[in-house]
Amino acid sequence: MKAEIIAVGNEIVTGNTINTNAAYIAKQIQTIGITPKYHSAACDTLSEIQDVLSKGLERADVIFITGGLGPTEDDLTKEAVSYYLNKELFIREDIVQNMKAYFEKLNRYMPDSNKKQAAFPADAYILENKNGTAPGCILEKEDQYIVLLPGPPKEMKPMLDQYVLPYFKQKLDYCYHTIDIKLFGIGESEMAEKIKHLLGNFEDVTVAPYIGDNEVIVRITACGKNRGEVIERAETIKNNVCNCLGEYVIGYNEDKLENVILELIKQCNYTLATVESCTGGMLASTFVNSSGISSYFNEGIITYSNEAKIKYVGVSSDTLKMYGAVSRQTAKEMAEGIRIKAGVDIGLSTTGIAGPNGGSIEKPVGLVYIGIALRDETYVYELRLTGDRQAIREKTVKSLLVKLYKQLKQICT
Amino acid sequence: MKAEIIAVGNEIVTGNTINTNAAYIAKQIQTIGITPKYHSAACDTLSEIQDVLSKGLERADVIFITGGLGPTEDDLTKEAVSYYLNKELFIREDIVQNMKAYFEKLNRYMPDSNKKQAAFPADAYILENKNGTAPGCILEKEDQYIVLLPGPPKEMKPMLDQYVLPYFKQKLDYCYHTIDIKLFGIGESEMAEKIKHLLGNFEDVTVAPYIGDNEVIVRITACGKNRGEVIERAETIKNNVCNCLGEYVIGYNEDKLENVILELIKQCNYTLATVESCTGGMLASTFVNSSGISSYFNEGIITYSNEAKIKYVGVSSDTLKMYGAVSRQTAKEMAEGIRIKAGVDIGLSTTGIAGPNGGSIEKPVGLVYIGIALRDETYVYELRLTGDRQAIREKTVKSLLVKLYKQLKQICT
Repeated sequence: MKAEIIAVGNEIVTGNTINTNAAYIAKQIQTIGITPKYHSAACDTLSEIQDVLSKGLERADVIFITGGLGPTEDDLTKEAVSYYLNKELFIREDIVQNMKAYFEKLNRYMPDSNKKQAAFPADAYILENKNGTAPGCILEKEDQYIVLLPGPPKEMKPMLDQYVLPYFKQKLDYCYHTIDIKLFGIGESEMAEKIKHLLGNFEDVTVAPYIGDNEVIVRITACGKNRGEVIERAETIKNNVCNCLGEYVIGYNEDKLENVILELIKQCNYTLATVESCTGGMLASTFVNSSGISSYFNEGIITYSNEAKIKYVGVSSDTLKMYGAVSRQTAKEMAEGIRIKAGVDIGLSTTGIAGPNGGSIEKPVGLVYIGIALRDETYVYELRLTGDRQAIREKTVKSLLVKLYKQLKQICT
Repeated sequence: MKAEIIAVGNEIVTGNTINTNAAYIAKQIQTIGITPKYHSAACDTLSEIQDVLSKGLERADVIFITGGLGPTEDDLTKEAVSYYLNKELFIREDIVQNMKAYFEKLNRYMPDSNKKQAAFPADAYILENKNGTAPGCILEKEDQYIVLLPGPPKEMKPMLDQYVLPYFKQKLDYCYHTIDIKLFGIGESEMAEKIKHLLGNFEDVTVAPYIGDNEVIVRITACGKNRGEVIERAETIKNNVCNCLGEYVIGYNEDKLENVILELIKQCNYTLATVESCTGGMLASTFVNSSGISSYFNEGIITYSNEAKIKYVGVSSDTLKMYGAVSRQTAKEMAEGIRIKAGVDIGLSTTGIAGPNGGSIEKPVGLVYIGIALRDETYVYELRLTGDRQAIREKTVKSLLVKLYKQLKQICT
């Protein structure tokens, strides 16, 4: 069963509201075996709503329309759909009574214009709205369905989940399972080459690459009639992908790297501390966003000047003079310095040129050194990063987290 | 000039990625006089891309398509468009060289598959991509235009702003002038109430409220034939809005609060230092994102534990015992401690309960104290914030910046 998801509303088309409903509906309907094929959006005019509706009915079995069910004059979705289907609208007295009760509960008087929201074609399957005044409905047209839902997400979502999904679930008999594999340190094209025998859109499974936030994702979506088999199929492919790309895998689904690292740190019962130059607190802040970090992270220092590097973590002034603040040697002394000063197992450091100024031929913008002092060993990595100041700083943090993750994975598991 | 905005990509249609590009493009093109009329989205297949493209060309003068310009086999936008327009794709050697240079800078090898990204119809107007490998392009078809843009927002946005908007601005004989007024410390509805006589959609000017990132925005868009008159009209309304809302105004257009503060600090020739508990480096990191901060900010400390608060900034253990780490007194001693320790003019501190755990009846999640030690005076503010851990931390930083901005504005101007 193929679906088109339509948003009606000037606020969507002009970009003042981001259309989050389409993604929500798309995700939810896949869980019961409806495949989203197209999205569209039109303004609040009869002709434009009918234009997207007629196109949708050419190419989909079911149309989900959000928005335009309100009480004002520019709420025209029901009018456009009923006119298109050649069905008259009748005011349903039972719905008017429900709406009156809703207003009474809010201690408010119901304006007459709201009665418009109780008007439906005679054969509409009404969807109750527990979070607002506009009910939705499902209309059938031969083998096709049109589902009308309110625009505000807090009204639309419960209506979809509580009434619409069960309605179609009963008619269909199909389930889906999705696994995201998150990778770092490999480009999308190189990754696609390595697993090109696995990528594709097959009958019962889809394997596709995506670009995430400073990471690359392989998404596996399996489908079928039997839930157990569907999950097994997705897991088998996940293992195959991991066999090809294991060294780049940093997590699955909703995993965030900082949380994965916190779990490893807990296992080893390690403590950590940070000293940052170019990232200026962003590294520490990333750790601190993990709830529960406070038992393992007590302190961090931002040493933006040379003096602060000397004062707080004992970088030698000779090192700074001879190699400069952005150097392998300084990164090493910073990481070791904070490890000792804070009395922790892991000392982490960053120093680099985030730009846009401050670069030279030998040390261009984007040159960054990161240090990991892990008990008796210190590892320093040189990075060559691109992008604006913020991007270089974000990539520095991500790169350091990946390196730390790999070290900890060897030791802690 | 009417526009349709099309997103190509399975990840959009399946709802795994929310289509934020459409709203961004819609907003931006309106500033130069192009009216968005429809949005649509299709999967990564030739026939489906052509389906939305042909429908779009029936009803719009210009089509913006995002996505499907990548190096993999399911990146098919250029193929679909060129086939539809009956134009052949040629690999442009100059673009291949640019891409190779991009990969070299990253110290990575360029897979052969990337060459696909350098293939364009002969008459394409190429749009350079400074933030990724896929260039975009503009194609003309009689009186219509098709603009191809990459899918990742951080590549699409600069390409649209730097190349596409100027391209169309030149062709249209109408000019727009937009001013965003950024406000903090007032809700959207309260703001709308205060300037309701100014809000509205008039023939030559639109005044509308928006919700930004922890801020409320009033956007003024004036339009007309004469550039000088258009700017004057927008400026007049800006002054009227500021007369009503002056105390909440924190900046205009692309102003970021941290940059505005840096300018004030430069004027006063002040230096600053930070000591953070709940924000864990986010405050320092926000300052460090301003290029040029290094002359005014040398060091910051993250004192996540009580011990660190004592060790680094001399908070008294009696204070911690008597009032706790999250208290007015601790915030005061932290701010004063870092000011003295770092030998700066301004010491800033944060301490609070970001949750989700650690709250109590007297000190619930969201209770935060921020301190500003400014020369001889120390100001401490109590905040009661809502949201998840990340949101509470972000609001803490924003609130502190606003308070600091207000103090500095009085002193430095």
